[in-house]
Amino acid sequence: MLLLRLIALGASVCAIVVMVTSHDSAQVFGMSISAKYSNIPTFKYFVLVNAIASGYTLILLFIPSKNSCGHMILVLDLVVALLLDSSISACVAIGLVGKKGNTHAGWLPICGQVPKFCDHVTGAIAAGFIAAIAYFLVVLYSLHSVMNLFAPRA
Amino acid sequence: MLLLRLIALGASVCAIVVMVTSHDSAQVFGMSISAKYSNIPTFKYFVLVNAIASGYTLILLFIPSKNSCGHMILVLDLVVALLLDSSISACVAIGLVGKKGNTHAGWLPICGQVPKFCDHVTGAIAAGFIAAIAYFLVVLYSLHSVMNLFAPRA
Repeated sequence: MLLLRLIALGASVCAIVVMVTSHDSAQVFGMSISAKYSNIPTFKYFVLVNAIASGYTLILLFIPSKNSCGHMILVLDLVVALLLDSSISACVAIGLVGKKGNTHAGWLPICGQVPKFCDHVTGAIAAGFIAAIAYFLVVLYSLHSVMNLFAPRA
Repeated sequence: MLLLRLIALGASVCAIVVMVTSHDSAQVFGMSISAKYSNIPTFKYFVLVNAIASGYTLILLFIPSKNSCGHMILVLDLVVALLLDSSISACVAIGLVGKKGNTHAGWLPICGQVPKFCDHVTGAIAAGFIAAIAYFLVVLYSLHSVMNLFAPRA
């Protein structure tokens, strides 16, 4: 459990660092493409959610007695898992447009022009994915510890 | 609980219908924009996830004795809640690009050209949002029914 939380913490901190340090720029058809995470609202949301997850995990690690908080921690874990899940999905959706573009909507792919930016974003998404999986396992483990998931309901 | 599931079922069926019936087309700068949900992978994912959620809810409604499945239903509810959450986030991310565009990436907004499509997508996202909230409440309610969430952990 502690291990899972440490993995989640490490992964979300990595995700933030990799995402924040991602920038690249290029000139395309005389139009300057400046690729920074802060230019894309979805990526700002991603950083925010990962910051919340890291902060929450850090606070939990330093709370000596978790039992007094009751099952509220389980609900908070669930909310963090949902937030991480939502930020990953949004980034993957935007990332796919960035990588492949969408001819129907007239959106051109930008990864060919700003490969460094795309590599960073891919890395950040991968790290965020690990954090999301870790939190999903934390929730499952918490559920399992308060009740046997595989036993019939009483 | 039954009411929440019925709301979730209704909302996800609505989301599918509204999303699938969304199409509009326009000519912009001599380039034909044909806006259909199937042109945007994220919206196909949205329809798929809502179909899974509807199917799962329907099956649950027709299972006479849920108790024999034990707590696995809770885990499946959790997975469905995560899937709905992820599809909504992805659609909102793409929807915002469609509505506002992204000047940094050179992606133009398309809602001005295909307003009917955008209205449908907005409606579908709203319905999907209701389904996601309903499933979140289903999970919370299930948790609460197997343990008192507000009591200290034993």
